[in-house]
Amino acid sequence: MRAIWLAAFVNLAGDWIIMSPSPFAPRTPAELPSIEGVRLAACEAGIRYQGRKDLMLVLFAPETVVGGVFTLSRTASAPVEWCRAQLAHGQARALVVNSGNANAFTGMKGVEAVQATAAAAAEAAGCDQSEVFLASTGVIGEALDTARFTGQLAGLAQAAEETAWEDAARAIMTTDTYPKLVTRTVRIDGQDVTVNGIAKGAGMIAPDMATMLSFIFTDAPLTQAAAQVICEAGVADTFNAITIDGDTSTSDTVLVFATGAASARGVSEISDASDARGAILSGAVEQVMRDLAHQVVKDGEGLSKFIAITVQGAQSEKAARTIGFSIANSPLVKTAFSGEDPNWGRIVMAVGKSGEAADRDKLAIWFGDIRVAVDGEVDPAYIEDHAAAYMKGAELEVRVNVGIGSGSATVWTCDLTPEYISINADYRS
Amino acid sequence: MRAIWLAAFVNLAGDWIIMSPSPFAPRTPAELPSIEGVRLAACEAGIRYQGRKDLMLVLFAPETVVGGVFTLSRTASAPVEWCRAQLAHGQARALVVNSGNANAFTGMKGVEAVQATAAAAAEAAGCDQSEVFLASTGVIGEALDTARFTGQLAGLAQAAEETAWEDAARAIMTTDTYPKLVTRTVRIDGQDVTVNGIAKGAGMIAPDMATMLSFIFTDAPLTQAAAQVICEAGVADTFNAITIDGDTSTSDTVLVFATGAASARGVSEISDASDARGAILSGAVEQVMRDLAHQVVKDGEGLSKFIAITVQGAQSEKAARTIGFSIANSPLVKTAFSGEDPNWGRIVMAVGKSGEAADRDKLAIWFGDIRVAVDGEVDPAYIEDHAAAYMKGAELEVRVNVGIGSGSATVWTCDLTPEYISINADYRS
Repeated sequence: MRAIWLAAFVNLAGDWIIMSPSPFAPRTPAELPSIEGVRLAACEAGIRYQGRKDLMLVLFAPETVVGGVFTLSRTASAPVEWCRAQLAHGQARALVVNSGNANAFTGMKGVEAVQATAAAAAEAAGCDQSEVFLASTGVIGEALDTARFTGQLAGLAQAAEETAWEDAARAIMTTDTYPKLVTRTVRIDGQDVTVNGIAKGAGMIAPDMATMLSFIFTDAPLTQAAAQVICEAGVADTFNAITIDGDTSTSDTVLVFATGAASARGVSEISDASDARGAILSGAVEQVMRDLAHQVVKDGEGLSKFIAITVQGAQSEKAARTIGFSIANSPLVKTAFSGEDPNWGRIVMAVGKSGEAADRDKLAIWFGDIRVAVDGEVDPAYIEDHAAAYMKGAELEVRVNVGIGSGSATVWTCDLTPEYISINADYRS
Repeated sequence: MRAIWLAAFVNLAGDWIIMSPSPFAPRTPAELPSIEGVRLAACEAGIRYQGRKDLMLVLFAPETVVGGVFTLSRTASAPVEWCRAQLAHGQARALVVNSGNANAFTGMKGVEAVQATAAAAAEAAGCDQSEVFLASTGVIGEALDTARFTGQLAGLAQAAEETAWEDAARAIMTTDTYPKLVTRTVRIDGQDVTVNGIAKGAGMIAPDMATMLSFIFTDAPLTQAAAQVICEAGVADTFNAITIDGDTSTSDTVLVFATGAASARGVSEISDASDARGAILSGAVEQVMRDLAHQVVKDGEGLSKFIAITVQGAQSEKAARTIGFSIANSPLVKTAFSGEDPNWGRIVMAVGKSGEAADRDKLAIWFGDIRVAVDGEVDPAYIEDHAAAYMKGAELEVRVNVGIGSGSATVWTCDLTPEYISINADYRS
């Protein structure tokens, strides 16, 4: 028998907090295969809430390399700064992630909490502190009391096993209504190579802070430089192409860990992310990241629609993305989607405000396959009832051609509903 | 007896549309004095709705000069392009504004509608077409049927009088719940000089489009160059320092008209906006613009709070404003205000995502006079109950010092409520 996981938990005051699951929540989470050289464990440390796992430890075999991408926030959290520093050598033996407290905007106390966690994890994992990577997500501005969990790391290290993917994915959740897991297998040098990924979303609830965390694991043998390139390349059109509300967390972290265990099965080292073998692995990592990125958007707070916005005909790919985000982040566009209103006027507005070149008199807009506007005017053949019917779908596509050049990009977002406001306006409990 | 104006109107289908008035709506609109050389009239042209004035004509005495500032949208409307072109000479004899249809994204038909309106207004006013200034606000993407109103311009010109300020302010409203009027009088060369202003807000409702329009009128004798400088200088810290939802209309227009009639009373020409006399007038124009800008925010859709955000200690004034807007436009910050939650963590997040330099470990934040954070941590003396009590007020001040330099700026915004979503998600009627 499989228990149904409810998006509900008890806060420290003993109140139940119930969240409606996203309409896109999968019936059951994906089951991930083992990856040689990766062992995981999670537990309830009671960092902020009771009755839910909130601490995750991952142990890596020796020689595991890591690449990473972090928030661009100018007020990045202490764990982000720690990881950035350790990436200089890029060797990883342990990953510790807690939810419930982001250890952000905590001044020197935050740095001390990171050091205490790294020290405890290094002892539990039998490695150097510099080989410990860390992430924290949850409330910000409150000191992270590491005493609540450092004592548990030794036990987690002993309990760690190759199959605890779902436990790990659940332990890093904050306001997510479902755990996010993906796996892909590709053939390299005649062997199966696996890429697993977990993520937590940018969904936000008082008192927690927006944060996107994702951890990717593979048994492919990568140089550290290749791991870094593959991480950066993967993020560009996946995690960096989604937006829920345009807000950026202090803690966003994506790390790619490569144990290299597949080399024992005859897979030779990948040192160039762009050669044939590198491209296969890079493609798999990107697929995993895209799937996770979509899962993150599909768990956006209060959402009812998942929307792909493709911009074509821009001056450059960068310009296309800027226009795409201008559309995706516009509260007016997002509310129109929640009202199932094919309000293309708001899309024109959002194109205009992006600051990127657009030819007003060549602009064309589609909802799905329905062309709404062409040559800067309503399409004479446009029938609004058709577009209105299309807008009732749960997954929508909008395409805009701005008539300037050949740059194109796709970004993904969700709609903005009254539930988003209710969730985020609640006084922090 | 003075009728109470209800924020309600009938659409073409005969349905009543009722809008709750803003909690900040004044009990009665300001009464504006006459300005010699300015005559106004408004009427019900039935452009989109019945039972409300939607067409305004203002006539100016010969020698009236005009300065203007327009939307930065790359998809600016046809009327905006017309006004920009006429500003090259900067002589104005007539201003025509309609609500109900923005004449934006209407291709060649939009240009033709502008030309037809200018021709009819020029005939009615007895002036050259190039002396006619135009603005339109309302639904976008639908052709503006000028036949509905061009025939009425001659009658409006005959009816125009010096006192019809409130009629004019009402005729340019779309989703505004109250007309916006301000007046200031200053002494120049021993004489009273008057500055009157009207505006309509960026509040939006299906099916209308965001647009901010403001028209300022003075009897001061200005050169056209001085009118332009005074307009640009005035806008910088007023209309360009407010945001409701970060969206930018295709039609935003601010025009300053100076009839010069005060010269007959011995006020000599102001050709330098920065000399002593120019500074007095410039100050009055800026005060009028600031008051109107605040009125626009205070009529933001669904708002419950008016919020001033001051950023200090930034690298430059521009950086301070960028940080201010990052805070003011953050959906998470705005929803926290609507929930009366002193959620300073979200302010830290918004500072971080602005991209401007900020010293995380020197950051300080105040709600009103209550210091919440200092030196990058919660203020040890902070008592959240005090901040929570402060947040219950209708007009709030937030101050942030980012600890880098001496740049400062203030921006104004409102909170984001479930009503905003409901209003904007409704299917266009």
